[in-house]
Amino acid sequence: MPKISFKGLNMPDSPIRKLTPIADGAKALGRHVIHLNIGQPDVQTPPMAMEAVRSMDRTVLEYSPSEGFVSYRKGLASYYSSVGVDVTPEQIMVTTGGSEALAFAFMACLNPGDEVIIPEPFYANYNGFAATAGVRIVPVTALLDDGFALPSMDAFEELITERTKAILICNPGNPSGRKYENDSLDTLAELVKKHDLYLVADEVYREFDYDGKLSRSVLSMEGLEDNAILVDSVSKRYSMCGARIGALVTRNASVYRAAMKFAMARLSPPTMAQVASEAALKTPASYFEEIRLEYMQRRDVLVEGLREIPGVVCPTPGGAFYAVARFPIDDCDVFCKWILESFQWEGATVMLAPNTGFYATPGLGKQEIRMAYVLEVSEIRKAVTCIAEALKVYPGVVMPRTQSHS
Amino acid sequence: MPKISFKGLNMPDSPIRKLTPIADGAKALGRHVIHLNIGQPDVQTPPMAMEAVRSMDRTVLEYSPSEGFVSYRKGLASYYSSVGVDVTPEQIMVTTGGSEALAFAFMACLNPGDEVIIPEPFYANYNGFAATAGVRIVPVTALLDDGFALPSMDAFEELITERTKAILICNPGNPSGRKYENDSLDTLAELVKKHDLYLVADEVYREFDYDGKLSRSVLSMEGLEDNAILVDSVSKRYSMCGARIGALVTRNASVYRAAMKFAMARLSPPTMAQVASEAALKTPASYFEEIRLEYMQRRDVLVEGLREIPGVVCPTPGGAFYAVARFPIDDCDVFCKWILESFQWEGATVMLAPNTGFYATPGLGKQEIRMAYVLEVSEIRKAVTCIAEALKVYPGVVMPRTQSHS
Repeated sequence: MPKISFKGLNMPDSPIRKLTPIADGAKALGRHVIHLNIGQPDVQTPPMAMEAVRSMDRTVLEYSPSEGFVSYRKGLASYYSSVGVDVTPEQIMVTTGGSEALAFAFMACLNPGDEVIIPEPFYANYNGFAATAGVRIVPVTALLDDGFALPSMDAFEELITERTKAILICNPGNPSGRKYENDSLDTLAELVKKHDLYLVADEVYREFDYDGKLSRSVLSMEGLEDNAILVDSVSKRYSMCGARIGALVTRNASVYRAAMKFAMARLSPPTMAQVASEAALKTPASYFEEIRLEYMQRRDVLVEGLREIPGVVCPTPGGAFYAVARFPIDDCDVFCKWILESFQWEGATVMLAPNTGFYATPGLGKQEIRMAYVLEVSEIRKAVTCIAEALKVYPGVVMPRTQSHS
Repeated sequence: MPKISFKGLNMPDSPIRKLTPIADGAKALGRHVIHLNIGQPDVQTPPMAMEAVRSMDRTVLEYSPSEGFVSYRKGLASYYSSVGVDVTPEQIMVTTGGSEALAFAFMACLNPGDEVIIPEPFYANYNGFAATAGVRIVPVTALLDDGFALPSMDAFEELITERTKAILICNPGNPSGRKYENDSLDTLAELVKKHDLYLVADEVYREFDYDGKLSRSVLSMEGLEDNAILVDSVSKRYSMCGARIGALVTRNASVYRAAMKFAMARLSPPTMAQVASEAALKTPASYFEEIRLEYMQRRDVLVEGLREIPGVVCPTPGGAFYAVARFPIDDCDVFCKWILESFQWEGATVMLAPNTGFYATPGLGKQEIRMAYVLEVSEIRKAVTCIAEALKVYPGVVMPRTQSHS
């Protein structure tokens, strides 16, 4: 039998989806599995997006241009203008999800063996795109006890080598829920300019921002015209994960041109989903405000609930819809499997994402769990109760020692 | 300014799409551009596919499973059974177009620097996926004067090195329109087994087959259970190019598992397009028969028309909907640009694909043009007239010398 590739062998499984067979097993036993593992919001997709597809009068489902329909790119330019980013439709490339935008950014900018510095914990799927492009991820560790603040510039600078080509941030962050302050971003911009690096920013959670002020986009930072690459997506913004529509946005024409070659190779992003995404641009501000308030409530129920569990530490997320908590456990991978396989509370159990999969440094995150608060408050309450009860009986509980003064 | 990657610099532009800006220029001058460059059929998508999306009652456009909806995979298993391929839903992975299936096959099976042998001319976008995976394409040349028959096994065997991991075929072929005979495929299967290689087959044109007998699928060839990987797509079959739904099908569980890691990293294929593709499975046989007859007529009009032009040589394609012809010209890249920029016939011109872009061996195909016969017969007639008139005045005409007996 011919061998499979090293990438295929060594690429880590998704921490978000790898426990799915075990969850399916729990469901087969009749258990109600509460999915805190995946950022699949239960929020209704804007009805105008679905309506646009229903009333589509195409009879041939044709390719779109490789860079996406021009009408949609014009609409996107207006959207960006409304969030303080001035770009032209020619600087916007529609992609098959934010995933593909990131893959294109890596492929266009980095050679195999080149390095990208990413604050960890980071969205685990970055590993897949880095593996695909042969790019080496160099992690700079952010700390749970600091609320996953952007690491110091010294910490970044220590990691910069001649192979470093880019820094990648996710703001607001997945899995951390961290929203970076403007002054941290300004300092980062200086570092990027000093070393002439690309700054790739995953801003797909832009609208999920709990102090009511939008995060600063990497494309609205001065002096970064040639360095900044924005990765975006409709998945979370409009609760349209299944559309698979994203965007790569950059003012660097060479990067755009190089990315276009990869875009042409895969022909085009999905047509119907672009129609839906274009219609979604007309979503009224009230939709986002309602969702923001709903998510704040969900966040508070989750975070406050978790904090009442002995030994659990959970910083308050400022954006996105994830929280990372430290649990008093030996090993989150074991715990997440155990709770699905061997535990139930009133017929229910919880699917969680072990946070180890969001670190590149081996051994980190062993006591950490990522949770997506994308379900109704009543479900989140049930999940918290289930976790609290589970921690009473989980065989691998390791309670933190009280801080001593020695 | 940070540099872009070597891949981004060196990856060739798509020969199918790179002349688009020049075609746009011709259109801006009011010219009617007949698109023979791209395999975007004008055939109606099965109405039941569009209807399924219109009547979708989802209110949240959610992710699907990374491997695609199970109902669709079950439907696909029945479809494959109807074309003589027995596979289970668990051996089928739904992908974002055939493009992604091929990318996954490369990533799962080949390491950077590994070699894949492909008969040239081949579908130019293979270059993109090979570049992405760092895989080296080793071409084995098929000849226009042989009707692009599968090269001899000796020709293949000469190219096999210790880095050779796979052979990739496209059957029926793009750009050649060649349909491989069963005995050629059997010999190829022996070679594949002898050297323990993967045999990846792009069979997206399965139903476009003009002798009425379906080509043999790589998955119905005995003894290749661990070697065969099928790349498929709904794009051409149901005239649904814009859906971006394909499939990777293999009985090799290790390959499937490795490909699933890449599938998980990109989350899922588009949801609405899967709904449409599942409904399209119910397309009646009469749809395909009607289309087959229509395409045969188009093919005949194109090929017979071209053969009447002095100096043009065009083998008869047995499948797919492309023809490659040799034109009496100096350089197809120059000619394809010139005809768009500097020529018109009764207000019309033609967009063609220079066939150089479908060869990996530099210098080959300079007199060859690929044409997709996906338009109405009247348009194809217009295009042929336009080409005939263009060749009367094109400054780079190089008439073939009469064969001498020396």
